[in-house]
Amino acid sequence: MNAEFINPFISALINVMSTMAQIELKPGKPKRKSDDKAGGDISGLIGMVGENIKGSLSISFEENLVLEIMDKMLGERPASINADVKDMVGEITNMICGGAKNELSQKGFEFGMATPMVVSGKNHTVDHQVDGKKIILPFSHISGNLYLEMCFND
Amino acid sequence: MNAEFINPFISALINVMSTMAQIELKPGKPKRKSDDKAGGDISGLIGMVGENIKGSLSISFEENLVLEIMDKMLGERPASINADVKDMVGEITNMICGGAKNELSQKGFEFGMATPMVVSGKNHTVDHQVDGKKIILPFSHISGNLYLEMCFND
Repeated sequence: MNAEFINPFISALINVMSTMAQIELKPGKPKRKSDDKAGGDISGLIGMVGENIKGSLSISFEENLVLEIMDKMLGERPASINADVKDMVGEITNMICGGAKNELSQKGFEFGMATPMVVSGKNHTVDHQVDGKKIILPFSHISGNLYLEMCFND
Repeated sequence: MNAEFINPFISALINVMSTMAQIELKPGKPKRKSDDKAGGDISGLIGMVGENIKGSLSISFEENLVLEIMDKMLGERPASINADVKDMVGEITNMICGGAKNELSQKGFEFGMATPMVVSGKNHTVDHQVDGKKIILPFSHISGNLYLEMCFND
């Protein structure tokens, strides 16, 4: 898994947040994931399957940031994570993966996307079960942090 | 989504539990899922992608049952859910989906499986974001319950 493959996911995330929610994310330092904490309070998950690609992606949001995104995108700010927030996280996950998929397709990487799943709950953990490396990319905003995690079988 | 498609997942689950862990599960009444509670304390999730199939599956275990399975399969019973239990749940999810995939392939349904993800945390919720129906199948055992959930875009 190299930068050529990861960068389209990063640009898709930054673009979706900027254009849909006027939220400018500040990328942090990527790292290999060593524990399995999701990092956030709600996570969007999606599986990817191609002839030579098999993996999973998660985007984990801190509660305050996801409520800010909800407010900016849909003009409503619920007191806590509710069904509408979960739907929005599913949509965002789909959009980011779809954006990266389109860009990667032009570079000759083809894969299909499964349907997104949204997990929530304080202190939940997401453990991607892959043989290959797990990369976690932190992004920060004044409202809170989010974590993009990508895992592929080599 | 009809019985012909769902039944291979049910038989794979019952077979894997019976042969790998000598655990005989009692199937309950399938229902449409109305809320998004996972039902268990640890869930294995996997995405499926085919030309005409797109969906996700989760298998959610109550803690006491998953520890019993761990004990039966690997001869060790940790005090609570740990990294080994998570790996086992990932393996089980993979085996069940793989078993169903083989059987469905013989019936002409072809799909690829993404890599499994394992979510844990008390009171976590898993919300499958699909346009189609969500079916939840409860199974019971003296040690605890598990819930197989399958969702596909129609």
